Order: sequence, then C-alpha cells, then structure tokens
Amino acid sequence: MSSPPLITLLTDFGDRDSYVGVMKGVIAAINPHIRVIDLTHQIPPQAIAVARFHLMTAFPYFPAGTVHLAVVDPGVGSQRRPIAAALAMGSFLVGPDNGVWGGVVQQYPIQAAVVLNNPTYWRTAQPSATFHGRDIFAPIAAHLASGAALSALGEPIVPPTLVDLDLPGWQRTARGLVGTVQAIDHFGNLITNIPAAELEGQPWQVIWGNYTIPAATTYSDGAVGHLLAVIGSHGWLEIACYQGNAAQRLQATWGDPVDVVWLTGGGQ
Amino acid sequence: MSSPPLITLLTDFGDRDSYVGVMKGVIAAINPHIRVIDLTHQIPPQAIAVARFHLMTAFPYFPAGTVHLAVVDPGVGSQRRPIAAALAMGSFLVGPDNGVWGGVVQQYPIQAAVVLNNPTYWRTAQPSATFHGRDIFAPIAAHLASGAALSALGEPIVPPTLVDLDLPGWQRTARGLVGTVQAIDHFGNLITNIPAAELEGQPWQVIWGNYTIPAATTYSDGAVGHLLAVIGSHGWLEIACYQGNAAQRLQATWGDPVDVVWLTGGGQ
Amino acid sequence: MSSPPLITLLTDFGDRDSYVGVMKGVIAAINPHIRVIDLTHQIPPQAIAVARFHLMTAFPYFPAGTVHLAVVDPGVGSQRRPIAAALAMGSFLVGPDNGVWGGVVQQYPIQAAVVLNNPTYWRTAQPSATFHGRDIFAPIAAHLASGAALSALGEPIVPPTLVDLDLPGWQRTARGLVGTVQAIDHFGNLITNIPAAELEGQPWQVIWGNYTIPAATTYSDGAVGHLLAVIGSHGWLEIACYQGNAAQRLQATWGDPVDVVWLTGGGQ
Repeated sequence: MSSPPLITLLTDFGDRDSYVGVMKGVIAAINPHIRVIDLTHQIPPQAIAVARFHLMTAFPYFPAGTVHLAVVDPGVGSQRRPIAAALAMGSFLVGPDNGVWGGVVQQYPIQAAVVLNNPTYWRTAQPSATFHGRDIFAPIAAHLASGAALSALGEPIVPPTLVDLDLPGWQRTARGLVGTVQAIDHFGNLITNIPAAELEGQPWQVIWGNYTIPAATTYSDGAVGHLLAVIGSHGWLEIACYQGNAAQRLQATWGDPVDVVWLTGGGQ
Repeated sequence: MSSPPLITLLTDFGDRDSYVGVMKGVIAAINPHIRVIDLTHQIPPQAIAVARFHLMTAFPYFPAGTVHLAVVDPGVGSQRRPIAAALAMGSFLVGPDNGVWGGVVQQYPIQAAVVLNNPTYWRTAQPSATFHGRDIFAPIAAHLASGAALSALGEPIVPPTLVDLDLPGWQRTARGLVGTVQAIDHFGNLITNIPAAELEGQPWQVIWGNYTIPAATTYSDGAVGHLLAVIGSHGWLEIACYQGNAAQRLQATWGDPVDVVWLTGGGQ
Repeated sequence: MSSPPLITLLTDFGDRDSYVGVMKGVIAAINPHIRVIDLTHQIPPQAIAVARFHLMTAFPYFPAGTVHLAVVDPGVGSQRRPIAAALAMGSFLVGPDNGVWGGVVQQYPIQAAVVLNNPTYWRTAQPSATFHGRDIFAPIAAHLASGAALSALGEPIVPPTLVDLDLPGWQRTARGLVGTVQAIDHFGNLITNIPAAELEGQPWQVIWGNYTIPAATTYSDGAVGHLLAVIGSHGWLEIACYQGNAAQRLQATWGDPVDVVWLTGGGQ
C-alpha cells in the first residue's frame, strides 16, 4: 500500500465556523486519499508573524513530500501574490506570499516557486474575492499532493524568493545576550528568539525587570509557581513557571526584550 | 485503491470533553476505513439555527456520497424524530429532525427518508437517553457510509419531508432591500441573508444606524479599521471591517436588520 | 484492505500552538497509514484527574488494538516514569505514569508494562527535556501501532502496575447515597461518581443546598431552565439544566458533594 499524500493546514479561521471543514471538503473532492493534519487554526486574526513562527517550528517534524498549506491572509483578493513553492528537501508550500513562509525558507531553500495564476487548478475560474483558501489554495494543495507539476500551476517566480517579515533579532551585550519574546504558548511559556547554542559553555540567568530567573533543565526543576529559564523544545531559550503561567506572572507580550546575563563575569 | 467513505461531523459539543472523540471511536469500530471531517463543534449549545446555517453553507463543497452527521439536539430522548435521509444528488443526512437540515434540503431535494427505529444498526439496543450521537447517529452514519441500505434503518417517512425553522427572509423596499444578519463568523464578519444576485447591475451601499457602509470587492479595499460591504464567500452580502471586527464595531447580533440602498435613486 | 492502525490522542496542549500537529507529524513520518483521533486537547493545564476521567470514559468505545496516547505531564523530564502498557483486551497505553491511566486499568487489566528507556524507538537519542510527547511518546505510540513488540521498548515493570490517584469515592448514607462531582462538561452538566446501578429499584431525588432536584429520564423532561437529575451517558448520576447550565446555576465545582435521597423512606 503506497503512502497517502499529506497536507498540513494552518489558518486564522478559528473553530466556530465551517471554513476549515469546507477546505477539507474541497481537498477530499479532488483526492479522497489525502490526509490533512491541522497545525492550528487559532492564529490571531491576520497575525502573520505568529503564523510564521508556527510554520517554522512545526515544519521540521513532517516528512519530505508534505504539502504545507497556510491561509493567514489579510490581503486576500488584492495585495499579495498567491504562491506555491517546491523546497529542495522535497516538500511544498502553498498560500499567500506575505511573510508566513519566511522562517521555513530560512532553513530549507526553495527550489522553484510560481504565482498561482492558472485557473485550471482552481476550484472555479471565478473565485470568491474573500476566500482564496477554499477556491485557490486548497485545490492547488490537493493537486500538488496528488502529483501535479509545480510548473503547471502558474507563472514562475525567478529567482524563487518570497516575501519575509522584518523581525527583531538577538545580539550580544556587555554582560550577556539580549533577544525578544517571539511566541507565547498555551501554557504561558515565553519562547524567546535566543538560540540554545549561544547559551552553552558557561552559566547564565535571565534578568526580567525586578526578577532574576535561574536556568534549569525542565519545568519541574523549580518549586511550584517559581519562574525558571530552560532550553525549550523549539531549541530556543524559554521562560516558564512550574505549574503556573509565566506570561501572566510577568505580564509579558510578544516582542518584549529578554536579557541573559553570564554568571561568570561581565562579558566573554 | 477505492475511495474511503467520508462522514462530516457537526455538533454543539465543544472541545473540552471527549464526546466527539467517542463518536469517532464508535465509527472506527464499525469501519476503520471511514474518514471523518469536522465541520465545527462550537455551535452554541442547542442553537439549531446556527447549525442549520453551517450545514447549508458547507454542504456544497463535499463530494456526492458523503454522509453528513449533525448532533445539535436539545430534544434528545423525547421530542424529535431521529432520522436519516438520502438526497437525490447522492449524499446522506443523519441526525435529529429538528430543523438543522432545512437549508440543505431547500437546495438539494430529498429522495427518501426514514425514522431510525431499527435497533439492529444502533450501537446498543438500550441507547443512553441523553447521547443519541454516540448510540444511534454515529453508528447509523458509519453503516450508511459502509453501504447499508437506507430502507433497512427504519420506517420510511412518506412523503420524505423534514422539519424546518421559520426564519426571517429578505424583501425589496422603496429604496433597496432589507434582510437580516444570519450568521457572524470568527472574524466578526456579518453574513446577511441577502443574495449576491439581487445586488447586481446597479450601485448600492448599506445603511446601518448612523453608519453608511460602502460596497467593496474584498476586505482590503478599505483602509484599516473601515467598514465595508462585500459579496462574501457564501454568496450573500457580508459586512466586514478590514483588520477589525465588524460585529464588535456595530454591536451586531444574529437577526439584526440590514438595509441596502440603491445609489442611483429611490427604488427601481 | 487491512485496517489502518489507530491512535487516540489526549493532551493539555490546547489548540493555539502547533504542539499537537507536530506530534501527528512525528507519527506520520514513522507510519503514514496510522489514523489519529483526538479525544481532547483542552484538559486544563496539568490536570491529571480530568485527563484520567476522559481516558476512562472514552476508552470503551474504541476497538481492541487501539493505541491510546496521553500527554498531561507536569513532571516531564524528571519526576515520573514514561511508560507503555499492553492491556489483556488488546489495546495499548502510552504516556507518563502519573495517574492518568488509573480509571482505564481499573476496568481493563494490564497484561504487561515497560518503562520507556530504550532510545532506539525515540525520535532522537537526545530528547527535549520539556516535550517528551514529541520525542518519546508519539514515536513509541507510532511504533506500537505499527507492530513493534512492547518488550522491545524498555525495561519491564514487574508486576505491571501503574500509579493511580487517590480520588474520593461514594458511600451509602442513612437516607441514600453521597458522592462527588467528578467532571463538569461543556454544557455545564455535573457528572457525579455515583453509578447508575445504585439508583435502580426505588425512587430518589438529589438535594443540593436549598435545591431539591427531581430524577428524570432525559434533559427535556423538565421545563426550560429547570434542574434535573438523569442517568448520564457515562453511566453515572448527572445533574443537568434543560437548555441551561447546571454548573453555573449551582456554582458547582469539581469535587463538590452530591446527596441522593430515597423517596420511600430513611434508608434501605
């Protein structure tokens, strides 16, 4: 039995409506053997940076050949290009070219990309102006997952580069590193953009306002309700609160600065 | 490889409990090859009109032969008939006969319908009085999807008509049209019951209290935060707010009136 | 066509992040034929007793051979054993040994259990200290569902017993029975721990503070907004409010006592 094709789906559609179900219906009508795995549909409305984070961090866990479909699309019907891209490692991207793919393609180079302007592979030649997810992106993803050639889907983008967001980075300071909170998860863990590799080799702690937050290995290394800093499962420095919610405790929001200080002296 | 059978599932069960998972377990125990696609489980508790809207609007995107299973069922165990119906176009409906199917069957005629009173196809001859979804509807849907004959499932309904709700319509006025808000989506878009076809051929705008809302093609045609009126993806007039929430801006609720006014004069 | 393997998945990960999607990606990368059914991902963070309730009540509806995977894991990386168990009836359990499985194994005896200390079946020999769901439990579940031998996954637990929680029971009183609220569902129904079988043979009612709550067969036996007590679909006494929310009406919380009083006299 050959492997069923796989599509991942990420949107800001929430779970109150049937928009996501309808996209799955469109996919099933094209190829009922395709499996669809939901990444999340709770991206805050039109939050491209949050979508970019989740696509970037989930991508490495899916097999080569997967079609990744994302619809967080404030510019639907006007301002951005609808695209599909083939990555050198064998998977595909389908969605708006508005920055959501930036984190994926930093790690996995694009081999080829097209603007989706060939209506042959759309659900209808008269797509809704407000729901390209249903009328363009879902059918394109289903056809790609079923073996359609990327080059058949529209005009090539040469060179094959996509839009990215201009996000804050991290940098070395006189006493350590400073980065930012790039995501806050369901548990209230603050996921920073400081890579684990930068924290190896010498002891450190985090300074956040009046809090000094010690380094730890896992959440339960601290007492219940204590703040601690760990290398999170995404591979970045993460601030957590054992059986509590660090984001609430620190009143933290996306983009807040995070200060790491070496314990062995004032710099390296 | 033949196509796997497909069931769609819509309930008001939310996502905190395992009720939906249990229904899928019952289906898998009968036929593990069936695929289940969730429409939504966030119908407000017992809100039959909301369920009716989502079934009506999602239905056209699923292939013929799909079994549509809906459990929004305030009268479980007493007041309504449990039914299954075969549509002329080849798909099936399974659930309570309480109005949830009204919008589907207005568009897709019923060929035959039965009251589900043959316990042979139930999970148990002693079903729970409070969870027919698990004990009657899910097994019936799984058997239908696996090829059971509709006529075997219970007593025929002759003629095959189902209950519908008495919902407000739209009508022409001296200066345009008046309809109502029939749904509010996750983004706060107000989906009216005014059909797109009625708005063709002459310019129009929407009057909502003190607001004059211009017609547009897609959400991003307005400035950020501005209200606009578009032909939504469902095929009805929709009031939206670009990168904002129209329902919050207008303090709108289900059933609110919506006034469309022709720009070319005082009537036609 | 042989049956596809089946995994159920229950976590406290919520639906905002891509943690659940990532676990499904890991499973699909090992065996793309596996079906995954979500029980719920809305277990309150680290609420082992709630997870235990949902696993216990959902388990009986899944076919023998199902692999049940649960990740509600406040002690990840330190305090509890990661385990897999084979039940005599043919299904499997995979997750932390922290009490989540207590309700299942009271009903379905364990045949064999292992501590998951063989990295061969992990996703990586260097698992994240904070996300065993992705790096240990999901791959183990996928391998078990694909036919790996339990004994290959780690050191046997002899005798094969797992941790359970010490939860309040129910007992007979001079005038009836007293139990507790063991779960509150999405509808606000209070699911007690008093078994249906104890309530057969004589009439009864529930006393809750100043409320006298009559026994009924199904929700709609009462007038809209009235409290009533039914035998719920889980097989326990349940307190509900027809088209209302009993938990809100009674300001009830998990663990509240529930008093059943015989109507025929002062004891039996």
